[in-house]
Amino acid sequence: MAQSNIPITVAFGDGIGPEIMKATLEILKRAGAPLDIKTVEVGEKVYLRGESSGIEASTWETIRQTKAFLKAPMNTPQGGGFKSLNVTIRTSMGLYANVRPCISYYPFVQTKHPKMDLVIIRENEEDLYTGIEYRQTPDTFHALKVITRPGCEKIIHYAFQYARANGRKKVTCFTKDNILKLSDGLFHKIFDEIAPLYPEIETEHWIVDIGAAKIADTPENFDVVVLANLYGDILSDVAAQIAGSVGLAGSSNIGQHGAMFEAIHGSAPRRAGQNVANPSGLILASIMMLVHLGLVDIASTVHNAWLKTIEDGIHTYDIFKEGISKQVVGTKEFAEAVIARLGTKPVNLKQAHYQKSTQVLHHELKNTSQIKTEIVGVDVFVEHNKSVDELYQKINQFSNERIHLSMIANRGTKVWPNSMSETSCGDNWRCRFIVKDKMSSLKMQEIVELLEKFAKSGLEFNQTELLRTYDGTPGYTLSQDEQ
Amino acid sequence: MAQSNIPITVAFGDGIGPEIMKATLEILKRAGAPLDIKTVEVGEKVYLRGESSGIEASTWETIRQTKAFLKAPMNTPQGGGFKSLNVTIRTSMGLYANVRPCISYYPFVQTKHPKMDLVIIRENEEDLYTGIEYRQTPDTFHALKVITRPGCEKIIHYAFQYARANGRKKVTCFTKDNILKLSDGLFHKIFDEIAPLYPEIETEHWIVDIGAAKIADTPENFDVVVLANLYGDILSDVAAQIAGSVGLAGSSNIGQHGAMFEAIHGSAPRRAGQNVANPSGLILASIMMLVHLGLVDIASTVHNAWLKTIEDGIHTYDIFKEGISKQVVGTKEFAEAVIARLGTKPVNLKQAHYQKSTQVLHHELKNTSQIKTEIVGVDVFVEHNKSVDELYQKINQFSNERIHLSMIANRGTKVWPNSMSETSCGDNWRCRFIVKDKMSSLKMQEIVELLEKFAKSGLEFNQTELLRTYDGTPGYTLSQDEQ
Repeated sequence: MAQSNIPITVAFGDGIGPEIMKATLEILKRAGAPLDIKTVEVGEKVYLRGESSGIEASTWETIRQTKAFLKAPMNTPQGGGFKSLNVTIRTSMGLYANVRPCISYYPFVQTKHPKMDLVIIRENEEDLYTGIEYRQTPDTFHALKVITRPGCEKIIHYAFQYARANGRKKVTCFTKDNILKLSDGLFHKIFDEIAPLYPEIETEHWIVDIGAAKIADTPENFDVVVLANLYGDILSDVAAQIAGSVGLAGSSNIGQHGAMFEAIHGSAPRRAGQNVANPSGLILASIMMLVHLGLVDIASTVHNAWLKTIEDGIHTYDIFKEGISKQVVGTKEFAEAVIARLGTKPVNLKQAHYQKSTQVLHHELKNTSQIKTEIVGVDVFVEHNKSVDELYQKINQFSNERIHLSMIANRGTKVWPNSMSETSCGDNWRCRFIVKDKMSSLKMQEIVELLEKFAKSGLEFNQTELLRTYDGTPGYTLSQDEQ
Repeated sequence: MAQSNIPITVAFGDGIGPEIMKATLEILKRAGAPLDIKTVEVGEKVYLRGESSGIEASTWETIRQTKAFLKAPMNTPQGGGFKSLNVTIRTSMGLYANVRPCISYYPFVQTKHPKMDLVIIRENEEDLYTGIEYRQTPDTFHALKVITRPGCEKIIHYAFQYARANGRKKVTCFTKDNILKLSDGLFHKIFDEIAPLYPEIETEHWIVDIGAAKIADTPENFDVVVLANLYGDILSDVAAQIAGSVGLAGSSNIGQHGAMFEAIHGSAPRRAGQNVANPSGLILASIMMLVHLGLVDIASTVHNAWLKTIEDGIHTYDIFKEGISKQVVGTKEFAEAVIARLGTKPVNLKQAHYQKSTQVLHHELKNTSQIKTEIVGVDVFVEHNKSVDELYQKINQFSNERIHLSMIANRGTKVWPNSMSETSCGDNWRCRFIVKDKMSSLKMQEIVELLEKFAKSGLEFNQTELLRTYDGTPGYTLSQDEQ
């Protein structure tokens, strides 16, 4: 044989994972996919061995040396402050693009949305999934939503590249930039910067709440949808479910240095070991992997055999419907039915015909190093359990000829100057100090001296945020009627 | 007349606002609602007069002196850093509960979900809607998600009280606490604390992504759903849309010191002044207001007349459907049709029969003042554009006999010790310093001294986060494999 096999990493996972992985690998083998499979363990068993990350150093090495990682669902232990292993793999490997096609298979799988055929492209490294959280005070908890320019540029370019490689016509962007003017504002702004580079692709933007409503109601109006991590998480589950079942959706996680492929559903421990689970999500993920590896013909063969199986009404229990399905089968039998159909094509459903994989291009990122920044103030968060006036009396004296107290806010609402007695306040207060002469920016030493005054007065600053301008534009939001 | 009128505040808003408000007030008047209407201006016109909050001091006074505020949709100027006026009113007035019934009117209004009848109870003061955002570096933007114990307690109590007052059987809670273990973890924990106080109400919890999928697919399985602000914003739009139209949904904003009632749709400037807009969202909001004011009989009368109008196929253009609707009418004519039906009841749709309003009870909040806190470290965020090793060299020397560098992370992923070359790093780095002897907590002065070392080395700390324990439990999340 002239062709050498392509090395991939495989993890069998927990719960129903081993069964559906076995079924999937059998199909790939029988389809003649030239794969050299390296098996690793991740998840529950590894945690139980005392490895708190859920993944061992040798496993990282295997993943790194192979072209792709096919992963079955895993369990993450509840509680204990463990970071999600899925998030760890995605971020450590730099797998920034999560791709989830959501397609309905009407009339063979029940759905209220027969014409649905969309792809969610979800940002995979940032947003609230960075998992950075602090208990600021006994009553107040903060989580950080992180959005970066390179992160936005990469995912938005990927969405357009995907559309181009897959003959899709439109890319839709969702943000909440009417509220999150800086962070979601950046995502939207970069979408508008990049869209003109792909003039053949139609574009649109929706505020995420109404956009979500439109996806849930008329998903057939969407094609490719690009979203930040949290919105993408919620809406890809919505889209997969209303297409027919989350059990029918596979996904890929793509980065510059690797790629991971998985079903979007979980490990379903209650169904484990019974040969009932639907392997379709993982099978479809493995097809995405074949395309990624350039094995486009085998990918088309497996996909068409799977479509024919669905069309023939050979269904696992989760999508079985009297009057539509012909035969209810187990995990193993479903895989055998797909294998028996290798080489055939669906008659009613749209046939698969892959031609190329989506290029992960290395676009030059916008250089922001020339931006001139100046320090104009600091927000200091302190715990306080009395009135705003008492806090004001304490901290106003920290003002000096260079810097002055300009605002006290509680949960985002300005409560000094001009508070309203109806405003409900928590135990964490944000004290904004601003430079008096905006022509003369502050030095870090001045910030340190201000913080020292807090410390000496017995006020523990549980959080500080430097207030900067960037080429003269404030890098912070204003409260209501703040100038 | 023995009965004195109840004072309410009314704002006619922008776009289609004036038309739908006029229609709504005419119905209330003809139904005999004993209201004394004080009209105020908020929104676009006020901004244009130079009042950057969009609301004047005298308006606050009017809202404060009346029992309820009925508000038509407004425009918020784009850009310019203005905080959303809706958010300002809700938070300044302490209107913590946003209530949105989402009901289908099958077969009179087209829907894929004929049996849907759920109520979204959305937390209204916290979460990312606090609008606290910072540009940390040229490339990195942060937004703060704020969750507090009193905020969670109030909204979750309200959800159960609402269920009780309205004869509903189940309250479902959605969070993303598998990722947001502290913030969403608190919301879930408090839900579990409060649920047993309402033993007659069934409860359940879903992770928000799969829960959203279930609402979008089978909304008939939900009854009352309680959510944090962002999830509630997205899912109430989803639920309203799939019930039939966001044009058919009203909402209330309830607090201890006031209440505001509004349609959930926007001001639709393109439809303004044409007598075509559907006033139903605002009419249903006004019915919620009547119930809140204790005018339950008039509320039932107006609601039944509205239901009969819908049932009779008298529809505005937005819900008009050939074969279902009988007559397409304008805003004014729709209101006249409702007025003509005052005193009648629907035959097919479920009749309204209000008996009492939801009590806003003043539950005693859990006292957390006895929790013992200790300072065990600090996270310092700095901009840096070279390798993690260079950053490590610079800052490791800040360690002393009391405190040491324990981790450097980038976008939530630990990159020192043991970085992976594939991890993609932004320009903002989180440096964690931890006390060496966990038996001997840190003083604020020690934190100040550490920060001074950063400042003197030319490292601008754009954010600091104090690391505390609360009764011995860390008030901060760990990175992957951090101990």
